[in-house]
Amino acid sequence: MIQNSSLPDNALPLGFRFTAVTAGLKPSGNPDFAVAVADTPSSAAAMFTANRVKAAPLIIGAKHLAKTSGHVRVVAVNAGNANCATGEIGLAACKIVCEAAAKVFGAAESEVFPSSTGIIGVPLPAEKLVAALPEVERTLSADAAHFSAFARAIMTTDTRPKVAHAQLVIDGHTVRIAGVCKGAGMIHPQLVPHATMLVYLFTDAAIAPHNLDTMLRSAVEVSFNRISIDGDTSTNDTVLLLASGASGAAVTADNTAFTTALTEICTSLAKQILDDGEGVTHVVELQIEGAASGADALMVAKAIAHSPLVKTAWAGSDPNWGRLMAATGYSGAEVDPSRIAIWLGDQQICINGGRVPDFDEHRAHTYLQNRNFIVRISLGLGPGKCTFWTTDLTKEYVAINADYST
Amino acid sequence: MIQNSSLPDNALPLGFRFTAVTAGLKPSGNPDFAVAVADTPSSAAAMFTANRVKAAPLIIGAKHLAKTSGHVRVVAVNAGNANCATGEIGLAACKIVCEAAAKVFGAAESEVFPSSTGIIGVPLPAEKLVAALPEVERTLSADAAHFSAFARAIMTTDTRPKVAHAQLVIDGHTVRIAGVCKGAGMIHPQLVPHATMLVYLFTDAAIAPHNLDTMLRSAVEVSFNRISIDGDTSTNDTVLLLASGASGAAVTADNTAFTTALTEICTSLAKQILDDGEGVTHVVELQIEGAASGADALMVAKAIAHSPLVKTAWAGSDPNWGRLMAATGYSGAEVDPSRIAIWLGDQQICINGGRVPDFDEHRAHTYLQNRNFIVRISLGLGPGKCTFWTTDLTKEYVAINADYST
Repeated sequence: MIQNSSLPDNALPLGFRFTAVTAGLKPSGNPDFAVAVADTPSSAAAMFTANRVKAAPLIIGAKHLAKTSGHVRVVAVNAGNANCATGEIGLAACKIVCEAAAKVFGAAESEVFPSSTGIIGVPLPAEKLVAALPEVERTLSADAAHFSAFARAIMTTDTRPKVAHAQLVIDGHTVRIAGVCKGAGMIHPQLVPHATMLVYLFTDAAIAPHNLDTMLRSAVEVSFNRISIDGDTSTNDTVLLLASGASGAAVTADNTAFTTALTEICTSLAKQILDDGEGVTHVVELQIEGAASGADALMVAKAIAHSPLVKTAWAGSDPNWGRLMAATGYSGAEVDPSRIAIWLGDQQICINGGRVPDFDEHRAHTYLQNRNFIVRISLGLGPGKCTFWTTDLTKEYVAINADYST
Repeated sequence: MIQNSSLPDNALPLGFRFTAVTAGLKPSGNPDFAVAVADTPSSAAAMFTANRVKAAPLIIGAKHLAKTSGHVRVVAVNAGNANCATGEIGLAACKIVCEAAAKVFGAAESEVFPSSTGIIGVPLPAEKLVAALPEVERTLSADAAHFSAFARAIMTTDTRPKVAHAQLVIDGHTVRIAGVCKGAGMIHPQLVPHATMLVYLFTDAAIAPHNLDTMLRSAVEVSFNRISIDGDTSTNDTVLLLASGASGAAVTADNTAFTTALTEICTSLAKQILDDGEGVTHVVELQIEGAASGADALMVAKAIAHSPLVKTAWAGSDPNWGRLMAATGYSGAEVDPSRIAIWLGDQQICINGGRVPDFDEHRAHTYLQNRNFIVRISLGLGPGKCTFWTTDLTKEYVAINADYST
């Protein structure tokens, strides 16, 4: 599995064409309308944010997938406007784009899957997207350059495109999986089977929609649902997986090689989001173990990942493990302080709830100066464990999100 | 009810003496050991943090109150060291201080109520506190100057002491209530009947411990339990209320004048903590209404109060109400987006889940430049409501908490 924003042409899943054009939604004038078209209706599975305020495209996308029993021809993504908190007008605008795209590509309206990302609460100028459709049609292409353009056009505060791909051989057929995503802030995806993180995964394996759905859920649960930058669960988070079947290889949900590759791609994309997170200077892997249950382990990980005091300490490479103890204590998980042990990398800091006798603070501080480091906490209670990835909280994060200009 | 760090001598509750000395725990050399002594055993009620990791003094203080059925002679508070995550050694250190203080003031050990605030995970140097007790005894005094010294000594990252007091006449007797508190970070107190916010409340009314307990719980629930700076619930939060009886006025839990004054003092102290919060440039009153239940209203308030994206927008006086919608949506409360309405002060921003047609962004931005402003959200679902106070999140907050120096 390779992470590379410019993937080789032969790594592109067969059966899809891609492009990106400038519709005029981003003030920068950069491409902001990304479209993928499947040569024939593609099997599809999607997951959306658990936020109860959902953007218009999520509502319509879910409806379309239900209507087609999991089939998609056209993926139409705009950046620069989230089309969220836009009420009936937002739904109407989304529908206008879907209708127009369906006409241009000879698809059913329900075969169009819409996505939007950007500012919330501002009406989507559907007419700009519709006007750009002829250029979209002219420029669609099944090559890596256009796939990369797709990856760039969906960016908002991202500083770089995020791509991961894999190739495997199944029954003598070469099968390709490639994914793109965007997201740098408002990142705490909590995807449910029906996330402003947007993820598009493509494969040329032949997979029935219900199998696709099973595989997507299990991959997302241990990747995108295990990251947080700021704890803010977006109104627009979406993960879409399309399978064209063009490789000629049939894959079912019990295919370990395929599900492993899919999970690795999702994990790579999830970590790329953190690495490009707003103002991020440290990416942290949390390993929680010895919890009473897996759910408890996740509660501890999330409390730590969302603690401003822990995250600011990380920004300063400060081995202030007391803040880890405090967050563990208020996580809601079952905790016996006298059983807690904490490691920074392979250096134990805390044993039986207290500081280790030979605490080497300088060594700990030096370790935390790495951009990537591991924090391991054992609760000493049971078999529950989880791995979770998060970031520090820096002045730059505040500057990016406090910057106000009309 | 008056907020003033220097209260007049005649506002001091009778029956108590106060002082503060330098024991040598604060690197600054400022006074760090604050002591209050009741002339005779005082009725007492306390509430402690809901964090499952509790500092040693909280464990011992709760045990002492149980043993004395709610009576306290000596309140011994050190700043500079939280005596938390210190294991058995921490409990032993706390016990040494209580024993020594009991001896000096002719009290039972269980009549000593200990508190600590400061860094977590570092052993408490009990010997320094014990060595300072003779100076404590020499300097105790029933005047406002020493009460103010008490308020200053308990400070850590606070920039100013926090005091509130009230006077009322009950059955012909003048009754005084005075409170002090500290806290500027790790502020999201979730106090349960058994909170690094420290609050000490004194009155000279005569109140039985069980009545005192009832009154404290109800006052805390709508004051300290309704504020958050960073969402980090401390391991050391404590609220203590002592009643000396020296005024000669007997008060029970149904005395509305007293409970109102007590609640006003708690609310004033809670807001003073926010106003002095780490890096705070805006203090925000959240008014949530129309929720399906009071619990739902509180969930929305807390989600907003803990959202880094909302809090950074406030730092920039940015009327980005989409972030309020997003936080409301992921709060866990029952939400129908099409019924949500939002006001900044008296300016309506959002109606039926969408932007008001005549949205005046400049006016909204100007209003949010005030240090104190009100955000009101109606969910349009039911009678549930709450008032909650919180702050913005600034670069200065990050700088304070990321600053690492060994």
